[in-house]
Amino acid sequence: MGYHLVRYQHQGRIKWGIVKEEIIYEITGTYDTLASFLRTGVDEAKNILSTKDPMRRSFAEVEILSPVTEPAQIVCQGANYGAHREEAGLTGQRPPFNLIFTKASSSMVGAYHDIYLPDHVQLLDYEIEVGLVIGKEITEPIKVTIENLHQYVVGVVLGNDISARDIQLAEGQWFKGKSFRTFCPVGPFLYLFDQDEAHYIHNLELTLSVNGQVRQTSNTAFMLYKPEETLTHLSQIMNLYPGDLLLTGTPGGVALKLTSEELETLWNPFAPYDEKMELIIKSQKNNPDYLKVGDVIKCTAKSTDGKINLGTQENRIVRKS
Amino acid sequence: MGYHLVRYQHQGRIKWGIVKEEIIYEITGTYDTLASFLRTGVDEAKNILSTKDPMRRSFAEVEILSPVTEPAQIVCQGANYGAHREEAGLTGQRPPFNLIFTKASSSMVGAYHDIYLPDHVQLLDYEIEVGLVIGKEITEPIKVTIENLHQYVVGVVLGNDISARDIQLAEGQWFKGKSFRTFCPVGPFLYLFDQDEAHYIHNLELTLSVNGQVRQTSNTAFMLYKPEETLTHLSQIMNLYPGDLLLTGTPGGVALKLTSEELETLWNPFAPYDEKMELIIKSQKNNPDYLKVGDVIKCTAKSTDGKINLGTQENRIVRKS
Repeated sequence: MGYHLVRYQHQGRIKWGIVKEEIIYEITGTYDTLASFLRTGVDEAKNILSTKDPMRRSFAEVEILSPVTEPAQIVCQGANYGAHREEAGLTGQRPPFNLIFTKASSSMVGAYHDIYLPDHVQLLDYEIEVGLVIGKEITEPIKVTIENLHQYVVGVVLGNDISARDIQLAEGQWFKGKSFRTFCPVGPFLYLFDQDEAHYIHNLELTLSVNGQVRQTSNTAFMLYKPEETLTHLSQIMNLYPGDLLLTGTPGGVALKLTSEELETLWNPFAPYDEKMELIIKSQKNNPDYLKVGDVIKCTAKSTDGKINLGTQENRIVRKS
Repeated sequence: MGYHLVRYQHQGRIKWGIVKEEIIYEITGTYDTLASFLRTGVDEAKNILSTKDPMRRSFAEVEILSPVTEPAQIVCQGANYGAHREEAGLTGQRPPFNLIFTKASSSMVGAYHDIYLPDHVQLLDYEIEVGLVIGKEITEPIKVTIENLHQYVVGVVLGNDISARDIQLAEGQWFKGKSFRTFCPVGPFLYLFDQDEAHYIHNLELTLSVNGQVRQTSNTAFMLYKPEETLTHLSQIMNLYPGDLLLTGTPGGVALKLTSEELETLWNPFAPYDEKMELIIKSQKNNPDYLKVGDVIKCTAKSTDGKINLGTQENRIVRKS
């Protein structure tokens, strides 16, 4: 059995804790970043439950923060589930390449933080995802298998890749439309794997609802490019460091629904920007699934056997005052 | 007059220095990252030239490293000069949006480091760029003007946005094709602005040659989206931190030459990947300008009045053994 790690603020101090049966057991050490915690805090964290009289906190008395901290690379897989590919106007099959993009690290917020709808964004969408947290520096090509995955991935978190579809699709490069502040709720728990638990990556059930209505429900078993393949591939290109986050793509059920004709126009580099923007707004504006101020998104992820529970995210859409 | 900062390795130790008349004056303090240097090393650096008997190093006895260090965000502007837009098959006018993408921080290397051509990459290209180095945290929307730019941008560096065009164009999202290790030579100098020098950002002459043949020559005055606008825009989206790098786009003269018909097919999401790859290889394969093993790229950037000189990069293309 692994550990459910949380990071939180309590009376102005930022602390880390281990959660068991809805109690937070506070870790005495102070760690500014997840990388620093992973370097020197893990042993204390694992022993905290057997410590004599550890400090206990209730969720009510703390503010939960993202367990992944800045600076961190947020590397994302795009179009990595068949059902999501189809609703975005693509074919559902596994594509011939593993599509990678990034989000700005300042988009990360805690699991219960508000999501700010920027003034000029018209099509705000959600994307539940499982995130892998890197535990060991990767600085050269490696072959990652289900047997050695736990050496590189210290655990898993729940993430929501909030996306401004109008900006993402009209501009073509996705970084900006997916990087606004608050566009990446992470947590509440970082589940730290025991050595024999990495296989759970292939069997986590994801559910996202908006205002109580289930929109996305799937299982990580349906990923087209698996975590082992993706890490092997990324290791051939770039370095990954402890505390970095790999978001593994979203299943079907997002608000965005594009026909292949619409997608074709949107990707045409000669269609004028204004025309693209008009097309996407027109094609989506009667779609009630886009997020509005006041909507509440709820996300959960857990293993089918109940052993791993990444907790529940609950985020309200607000205008930033 | 500002300062030409260098970072280098000397007898196994990593040090920082100020360059004057081709001598490196070694800073005694040790700083693991550029952010750490900017926090506490700038005063010593500025005083080093007036110190009694500072340690002097020659360029021959040190290995020059990138003055921008990991972790850092590398935020890049795409298609930000008219001449480059036209050779890539686009219209040369200022587009209606500021195109942003990122490179992995592990792509950074020093100004004289080899560039590794990955085995499967067929179309390796160069892109000389001026990089702005962030000096002050930006965590909320700000209005950047030429008057206050020096408060946010501590200085400028030379960068080369090496790109695997086959991967970049066949996959559509640019991060991967631009993020291979060694794909971002940075330096040799980080020019730290004096308060009244930020205007030089608009008047730096760039020249890139391959094997002695000039390929790119332009001036930052031709940028379509200016640094002030870009920082103002980015501040509305994301945080930038001291030591982060903003690459401002490349002028005309890269190897890539696409007709608008070719570009249209390449951006079509339904053109099969194999067909796109075949098209791009076929359209470019007789183009002798792509980089080959043994080629040497040389880049320089300086102000027209000679006051600011970002130094010379010299990078050889090699196969990684």
